[in-house]
Amino acid sequence: MTPRTTRVVCLVRRPDGEPLPRDFAVEEHPLPPLGEGQVLVRNLYMSVDPSMRGRLSTTEKHYTHNFTPGSPLDGRALGVVEESRCASVPPGTYVRHQLGWRERAVLDAVAVDGAGRIDPDVAPLPTWLGLLGQTGFTAYVGLTRIAHLRPGDTVFVSAAAGAVGTAAGQFARLLGAVRVIGTAGGPDKCALLVKEFGYDAAADYRAEPVRDALARLAPDGIDVYFDNVGGEQFAAALHALRTGGRVALCGMMSQFGGEGRTVDINQLIQAVLKRLTLCGFIVRDHEDLRTEFEQRVAGWLAEGRITARETVVDGLENAAGALLSLLGGGNVGKMLVRLGESAHGS
Amino acid sequence: MTPRTTRVVCLVRRPDGEPLPRDFAVEEHPLPPLGEGQVLVRNLYMSVDPSMRGRLSTTEKHYTHNFTPGSPLDGRALGVVEESRCASVPPGTYVRHQLGWRERAVLDAVAVDGAGRIDPDVAPLPTWLGLLGQTGFTAYVGLTRIAHLRPGDTVFVSAAAGAVGTAAGQFARLLGAVRVIGTAGGPDKCALLVKEFGYDAAADYRAEPVRDALARLAPDGIDVYFDNVGGEQFAAALHALRTGGRVALCGMMSQFGGEGRTVDINQLIQAVLKRLTLCGFIVRDHEDLRTEFEQRVAGWLAEGRITARETVVDGLENAAGALLSLLGGGNVGKMLVRLGESAHGS
Repeated sequence: MTPRTTRVVCLVRRPDGEPLPRDFAVEEHPLPPLGEGQVLVRNLYMSVDPSMRGRLSTTEKHYTHNFTPGSPLDGRALGVVEESRCASVPPGTYVRHQLGWRERAVLDAVAVDGAGRIDPDVAPLPTWLGLLGQTGFTAYVGLTRIAHLRPGDTVFVSAAAGAVGTAAGQFARLLGAVRVIGTAGGPDKCALLVKEFGYDAAADYRAEPVRDALARLAPDGIDVYFDNVGGEQFAAALHALRTGGRVALCGMMSQFGGEGRTVDINQLIQAVLKRLTLCGFIVRDHEDLRTEFEQRVAGWLAEGRITARETVVDGLENAAGALLSLLGGGNVGKMLVRLGESAHGS
Repeated sequence: MTPRTTRVVCLVRRPDGEPLPRDFAVEEHPLPPLGEGQVLVRNLYMSVDPSMRGRLSTTEKHYTHNFTPGSPLDGRALGVVEESRCASVPPGTYVRHQLGWRERAVLDAVAVDGAGRIDPDVAPLPTWLGLLGQTGFTAYVGLTRIAHLRPGDTVFVSAAAGAVGTAAGQFARLLGAVRVIGTAGGPDKCALLVKEFGYDAAADYRAEPVRDALARLAPDGIDVYFDNVGGEQFAAALHALRTGGRVALCGMMSQFGGEGRTVDINQLIQAVLKRLTLCGFIVRDHEDLRTEFEQRVAGWLAEGRITARETVVDGLENAAGALLSLLGGGNVGKMLVRLGESAHGS
């Protein structure tokens, strides 16, 4: 019997400053009837992403649509087909798609066929949203195509304990970096970076100015900076970068907080003096690298050369809290929400 | 009879804040005897460059040496060989070299032979330090190799009435830009940009926030920003740039002033959202483009398609004042100091 409704996470109002739990609500919404060529998917994992922060608050048009008060959130998710009106995507197929933040979704089969299918025998389901998903792909594209990582480079990654950061550190080493340095908030995360995620050294940005930390940990400078935060750490990296250094501009979460907002933009003179290249990117522009990425990372996973680590929160009712936790730095690695039972769980 | 001394401009002390006339002095210094393979050059024109500002104040090592209190300044100059102990560079040869800020210099002939020779029949002598010199080359490299200017682009140039800016605007149009916008200080310079230098529109940054001016003059956004100043204009350009926009970071003069220092570096989030590429450059890294540049620009000059414009100050004793004037925006086009009589004058 096809369910007629699904629980969804709705945006109640645009946050006034930092988002609060009251800005979100779980509601029961009708599901559309399953049309020809469509599938009903039961979501098993949902991705919780820093990029959602901007989509909550802004009314400016960016590279993707913003969330609308009164409507469900959406985002990357992984589910299993429960019912199908498309022969090529039968029930039991595992698919990745964009209609997360709800327990069930009706999707066009063409949207989840092909690249949308995932193989749970290659890697556990959470990994398909993490190291093998958009998160890992972001790290891979940023290091390879944007920052042109070369063997022998010294690499600095900010927000290194986050989803993209834990991927970037490990990938950088496997791609030939001789030294990988990360920053994170607090001594526990810093210890994990070195112990689990392939970092040579880590610095606690709350305990020490990042400019000092880089001078200490990379006295000869850095070649690549993978920027997830902007602000003070970006400015510190400008000073640490060597001539010809490259910066992949990925996230800039600090722009949303109160801190770091007064960092002097004129430190960009460093970019002239040292011929730096700074390049912002959005990973979806680089789908042509997807196959290469999946093959390499699946290989590294199979060989046990990289560690997939997720912070998993259970239940749709805790999803908004997971987002708020993520924005407060409460995760290590990929932040996921798990829904119901999963055939291949972590 | 070989002169035994030359007048030179010396740095008396590092400026404390803005440079002042008392920080400089004209002195008589001995000339070394002319060795085998050397030439004595009488300087005719000296280049006055914004990049000298940093070399006066800083003790940090950058891409070139800094000036030393008690020693002569140096910089690009153009002169005529008066005496030679090298058969391939006879007296009467016009040469470009690095020992300006003095009336005469003894140079190794190999340093001025080949690429150092200039042909006064191709263009007037001042042009060889301006549009056909490092100034024009900077504009050309920045537009072509750094910003990847494409036919159809809308281009914004800051400090557009300066030496590099007047070149960049004209080159951009000839390289296929459909719209070229510049900023300058004051209505007179803005009028000149449109009247003489190929700009479609100009805005007075003193009269209007540059962000507003760009919204008005390029309502559909810009593709390329040629940055000569950094600071507020850089931030305004970030907002005006279209997806995939490119920034050539050239000068950032504003970093030396008191203004613009508090611009929020976090506006760089625009670089992520719009996949911008920002690239600092130093023109001397791109000598492989020199021949192409000289041929194209000499062709445009011969066809009367570009305007060479210099602000010329006479006499070594006025050279420091010319530098201070340049730093205060007192020039239109290339700022030069003329020494003595010149066979081919402007």
